Amino acid sequence: MSVEDPGTDGELGVGMVGYAFMGAAHSHAWRTAPKFFDLPLTPRMRVVAGRDAAAVAAAADRLGWESSTTSWRDLLTRDDVGLVDVCTPGDTHAEIAIAALEAGKHVLCEKPLANSVVEAEAMAAAADTAAERGVLAMVGFTYRRVPAIQLARRLVEEGRIGQVRHVRAQYLQDWLADPQAPLAWRLDKTRAGSGALGDIGAHVIDLAQFVTGESLTGVNGMLETFVHERPRPASLSTLGGVAGEGTGPVTVDDAAVFMGRLSGGGLALFEATRFAWGRRNSIRLEINGSAGSIAFDFEDMNVLHYYDAADDAQTAGFRRIVVTDPSHPYTGNWWPPGHGLGYEHSFTHQVVDLVLDLAAGRQPAPSFADGLAVQRVLDAVERSAAERGAWIDLTPET
Amino acid sequence: MSVEDPGTDGELGVGMVGYAFMGAAHSHAWRTAPKFFDLPLTPRMRVVAGRDAAAVAAAADRLGWESSTTSWRDLLTRDDVGLVDVCTPGDTHAEIAIAALEAGKHVLCEKPLANSVVEAEAMAAAADTAAERGVLAMVGFTYRRVPAIQLARRLVEEGRIGQVRHVRAQYLQDWLADPQAPLAWRLDKTRAGSGALGDIGAHVIDLAQFVTGESLTGVNGMLETFVHERPRPASLSTLGGVAGEGTGPVTVDDAAVFMGRLSGGGLALFEATRFAWGRRNSIRLEINGSAGSIAFDFEDMNVLHYYDAADDAQTAGFRRIVVTDPSHPYTGNWWPPGHGLGYEHSFTHQVVDLVLDLAAGRQPAPSFADGLAVQRVLDAVERSAAERGAWIDLTPET
Amino acid sequence: MSVEDPGTDGELGVGMVGYAFMGAAHSHAWRTAPKFFDLPLTPRMRVVAGRDAAAVAAAADRLGWESSTTSWRDLLTRDDVGLVDVCTPGDTHAEIAIAALEAGKHVLCEKPLANSVVEAEAMAAAADTAAERGVLAMVGFTYRRVPAIQLARRLVEEGRIGQVRHVRAQYLQDWLADPQAPLAWRLDKTRAGSGALGDIGAHVIDLAQFVTGESLTGVNGMLETFVHERPRPASLSTLGGVAGEGTGPVTVDDAAVFMGRLSGGGLALFEATRFAWGRRNSIRLEINGSAGSIAFDFEDMNVLHYYDAADDAQTAGFRRIVVTDPSHPYTGNWWPPGHGLGYEHSFTHQVVDLVLDLAAGRQPAPSFADGLAVQRVLDAVERSAAERGAWIDLTPET
Amino acid sequence: MSVEDPGTDGELGVGMVGYAFMGAAHSHAWRTAPKFFDLPLTPRMRVVAGRDAAAVAAAADRLGWESSTTSWRDLLTRDDVGLVDVCTPGDTHAEIAIAALEAGKHVLCEKPLANSVVEAEAMAAAADTAAERGVLAMVGFTYRRVPAIQLARRLVEEGRIGQVRHVRAQYLQDWLADPQAPLAWRLDKTRAGSGALGDIGAHVIDLAQFVTGESLTGVNGMLETFVHERPRPASLSTLGGVAGEGTGPVTVDDAAVFMGRLSGGGLALFEATRFAWGRRNSIRLEINGSAGSIAFDFEDMNVLHYYDAADDAQTAGFRRIVVTDPSHPYTGNWWPPGHGLGYEHSFTHQVVDLVLDLAAGRQPAPSFADGLAVQRVLDAVERSAAERGAWIDLTPET
Repeated sequence: MSVEDPGTDGELGVGMVGYAFMGAAHSHAWRTAPKFFDLPLTPRMRVVAGRDAAAVAAAADRLGWESSTTSWRDLLTRDDVGLVDVCTPGDTHAEIAIAALEAGKHVLCEKPLANSVVEAEAMAAAADTAAERGVLAMVGFTYRRVPAIQLARRLVEEGRIGQVRHVRAQYLQDWLADPQAPLAWRLDKTRAGSGALGDIGAHVIDLAQFVTGESLTGVNGMLETFVHERPRPASLSTLGGVAGEGTGPVTVDDAAVFMGRLSGGGLALFEATRFAWGRRNSIRLEINGSAGSIAFDFEDMNVLHYYDAADDAQTAGFRRIVVTDPSHPYTGNWWPPGHGLGYEHSFTHQVVDLVLDLAAGRQPAPSFADGLAVQRVLDAVERSAAERGAWIDLTPET
Repeated sequence: MSVEDPGTDGELGVGMVGYAFMGAAHSHAWRTAPKFFDLPLTPRMRVVAGRDAAAVAAAADRLGWESSTTSWRDLLTRDDVGLVDVCTPGDTHAEIAIAALEAGKHVLCEKPLANSVVEAEAMAAAADTAAERGVLAMVGFTYRRVPAIQLARRLVEEGRIGQVRHVRAQYLQDWLADPQAPLAWRLDKTRAGSGALGDIGAHVIDLAQFVTGESLTGVNGMLETFVHERPRPASLSTLGGVAGEGTGPVTVDDAAVFMGRLSGGGLALFEATRFAWGRRNSIRLEINGSAGSIAFDFEDMNVLHYYDAADDAQTAGFRRIVVTDPSHPYTGNWWPPGHGLGYEHSFTHQVVDLVLDLAAGRQPAPSFADGLAVQRVLDAVERSAAERGAWIDLTPET
Repeated sequence: MSVEDPGTDGELGVGMVGYAFMGAAHSHAWRTAPKFFDLPLTPRMRVVAGRDAAAVAAAADRLGWESSTTSWRDLLTRDDVGLVDVCTPGDTHAEIAIAALEAGKHVLCEKPLANSVVEAEAMAAAADTAAERGVLAMVGFTYRRVPAIQLARRLVEEGRIGQVRHVRAQYLQDWLADPQAPLAWRLDKTRAGSGALGDIGAHVIDLAQFVTGESLTGVNGMLETFVHERPRPASLSTLGGVAGEGTGPVTVDDAAVFMGRLSGGGLALFEATRFAWGRRNSIRLEINGSAGSIAFDFEDMNVLHYYDAADDAQTAGFRRIVVTDPSHPYTGNWWPPGHGLGYEHSFTHQVVDLVLDLAAGRQPAPSFADGLAVQRVLDAVERSAAERGAWIDLTPET
Repeated sequence: MSVEDPGTDGELGVGMVGYAFMGAAHSHAWRTAPKFFDLPLTPRMRVVAGRDAAAVAAAADRLGWESSTTSWRDLLTRDDVGLVDVCTPGDTHAEIAIAALEAGKHVLCEKPLANSVVEAEAMAAAADTAAERGVLAMVGFTYRRVPAIQLARRLVEEGRIGQVRHVRAQYLQDWLADPQAPLAWRLDKTRAGSGALGDIGAHVIDLAQFVTGESLTGVNGMLETFVHERPRPASLSTLGGVAGEGTGPVTVDDAAVFMGRLSGGGLALFEATRFAWGRRNSIRLEINGSAGSIAFDFEDMNVLHYYDAADDAQTAGFRRIVVTDPSHPYTGNWWPPGHGLGYEHSFTHQVVDLVLDLAAGRQPAPSFADGLAVQRVLDAVERSAAERGAWIDLTPET
């Protein structure tokens, strides 16, 4: 397949690397997007790559891929692959994504973009170079594509909350609150880069910047590891698992808290933790502007709360918008109003948006540059935390 | 395909009749179930039937069926079809389902089972006869398969709320609250049998009986049509549409309210309406027992509220259970805790349960007899409404 | 004190009969109203009457009354008493209230107005006669005076929800859900007249009629007593107590469910129970109209939910109105916005409204006629329940 | 009255200084506490002091004080005054409170204790000296006395959430979000000391330290003034008012955000703002511990949410505790379960606790030392904000 012809005959051949939690979510999206949305290119699930031949073959079968391989480099030379979908841990993102872009393949890369700013810069540079040849790259901050979040962005863009004064953004999980929860790869700095900060903090940084349309100009941050030694796993599930014998060190943060200034002057507070008992996967975003407010909690993902300061005093109040109307983002393609969506729908929407952009030759968002911007914030938080919360400037790239 | 061998070589060939709202939901389920669940038979989406050749062919393509036909009777003679999935309006259920069962095909039939008790009785009888030959039938009350509802049933079964005292069950929609909402087939008694009562009231009757494990022994009911004349449609969506020229009569109920007695002595209150502004698709079920209570609202479908009267007075309170744990029904096959499911997942679960039952040669639930029981309640409500709410006994079948 | 001069020198002398739960609430209101509201007459808490001399003297001291007496008839002859406040169980209401009105005293009488329609009719007649002489009577449905309920009424009056289609009204308590909860006077038909129906069902009937501005034209009802025998009390608190030795019969209903038709054609569903585990005192009122909806739950009493069907589809949603704004009923006299009120404030508002009406020589609402109307509904529910839920007409008085 | 005999003949004579918002709340509490609680000393509302003779006389009458004076110093020499209740703005607290303590009067002083650490230190020292003579001082952080907050403290004390990992505490108001809201004294640094930080931030600092039983060991902070110039008021209400002619400068912060470390190692995030549209008076406190979590929002003040990690996985979930049970703090003296309390009840509870402590000769909590501790945090936040959020240590006093 040539770059000029992504998706021979109106198709987009996809090769995926990795097939765990994210691989399953991405596979579902590639399968499902063309069933509910009119796409200008039909995705073809050509091949999935993984290290263990038997396991990847089984995954291909279960997830609906036409073939499997033990080398992700195979994807780069296949003519029937127009896009490489990177679903591996962060330490491998840079190598795979850059190679794929250089090989002329579009890239969808899971977040965080990389495990370090240096890697992320190289990736963003590679994406810039590739874009000149029409090869496009996107990073997978899927929570942007929850309909309620898209609606929030739309309301902000339309000026319906005015100038942003406050952002409070939290990503709260509890799968490590039990000190006997076993060591997973996400607790190993080599693989994961960082802990709660990069894994889930990255999401709320992106959400805050995306919905406000602003960027952080600096941060003060703190990191903490509450449990330094954990049982080695007997078995692991996506998050969590069963403790086995022996223990090993946790080398990443369990929790991150930080505050920052938005480019428009607003104040932002962030929190990412895996120690919030009872909050399984609670992503909360609340924004107060000069003309109104919005509030979201992923625990009730089909709802956006919106306060319009222009409403008369007697009936003003947060509106609980059930974001399932045909007028809402994405939802007209699914079910009638009130029939809510779930977690994986945002991955399907990601495929839809990506395919539309590829077909139009448009840069998809979030770009690798957007991913780099998040990476710079993560880095600044880590540096601030190392200096007792001192202010770290995030100067806009020149 | 012989009856003894449903799904040659470990497959289950499926033929679907109808491809509108329910057809899309069922198709998604047939596609998705084998990707997330280990099934003993692999569903094969052989053929979809519809009256308009071009439209049904397009639907087959969009929804993932291998072929299409304009005659549902074709499905009965195809060897590669082991199950007929009936997704048409209620006036056609009896004819199709009975013919399919007689042809030795398993049947999954959308709710309500039929438009009348007479039809439903014939269907239940056909199902009984077929079952003797190992041909099995199931009616599609999918809301049973929302994980929170399954958990509710489990808690009741385990005695965790004790003896049932009260049930309040509501199905509230608002797509007809606007008098300019156009006439849809759901407002035509000939096609739909009844209005809110049969379309959505049937769901809450089934839910109440399923979760309590009891049956209604009688009812007092009222029906109402608030808007008797509506614009004929220029175009229709699943629920709703655009008004065109001229008007026509609404021949079904807009709303139904009824109260009944459960076989265990508890009191039950029901409401089904399409006139509850702001409630898009709110299915509420609250049950108070002698040892605790449960509450559910489909607007927050991943949550079950549970009150345990045995908790100490100081900390007793409704528990907001986020039903996404591996220990919860179905959810371990999807995503990590806190990553919620959506409307269509219950259809996927329906396929899973049905396939497991077929492979085991077990009668699936809800059976046609269960569907008939709901139909008898619907009929009793209509008869009561015609007699100013007089009590109508629902004597158990002998 | 002459009738022409209620409250010599700008005062309103008050004599209260009974000093238990309701007596405490009324006393607080008489003490507090003049501190937060400008009243044209200053209430003077002259005397409280009760049967036990020592107990009533202690109550007078504790609740802030100037004196006490063991005979309520003393109040009728005291010149310094302009109003008799009746806080006794329902079996004594008629005798006391009628005597007081005949003695030229204004009357505030707790709900339900009486234990039977016959008594209530006599009371309403006495109130009519008294009114001709400027002596006024009011029945104490205090929940009307929760600010959120007043706001609901205001919105309905202003047409902001249009024509009423549905009312669902529930009063849910759980203090009898435990079969070992002891026999209280509220479970004795002689004293209480009825059980959940008259005690708490009366409130939701009044609320539904008050907020909609309509009346019930007929009902179908069911009553149930789940626990027929209870321990005699060792000691009693307001609701509940400690079980002692021996048991006695429960002679009232534990729960009432009924449905009715509103004068404007809407459908109404009611439920009153003391068996809803986890619902301590949950009064829920939800009304769907042709132009919007409102919803209230006393468990969150400072909030009214309002859906305006005129809002644009993208941002329409139930508004969570925190009813504490200066523009809201009563609340401007209390604290700044967001500083919520509690249960007893509605009693204070009752005093405020009553005193304003007395000073203006205006008939207060709800009148004894309003109380009689509720009594007729209670009676109709009982009669319907005795006839297996048959329809009982509530013909408007002629 | 001698110090040895506070409250001659079982009475406690009270003199109050100031009679605005806080004066009204305190007056209600002094009036109401003895009506609902058995107090060992009966409060007597002897005198209220204010600068304007006519206004303070009217206030005395309206609020229930026996007399009034234009000089707060009069209170110090009156034998019938045993306690001085300081309800003035912060700039006068030190002078009045210290003088009162030196005159042998017990003191209840509104929060924040003072406008500076220096003043607060002097006050704490004066309180220490006075305590040696049996003269006691308390600072008025009334939100501690919301029953749900007391229950939260009790659960933490009992170890039911284990070791504290996270605190997120927010005090959100919106009365300044409109740039046309007029200049009030709370926006004048001379009078108020600071803005949102001292006025409402002080409350959440105290709540966080009180409920956890820990203290902050240091902070990183940011302050912001969004609107620097506001209309001078034509008239003012408690919060808010009507804009008049001309403008003046806002000399305090509109919002404060800060993060800190708790003495037990947990991370705490704080936010105080008057610019959160739609949040009238939302005080949120969420604490995650190693064994559970609690969450509170003053918008639903009668409820505490509690997650017990020991609950079985299937039914674990935040419990919505309606804090109105006889087993809950304070509530047994009010109404039956489910009959909620309001804002002013915490002031009544404050009087109850204070009077109990005075009668027992016990140091009341929070003491002036506790108030000083909060003041030190406020000061540290200001200093940190001046240094771009640099860490400021809060070394324990030696």
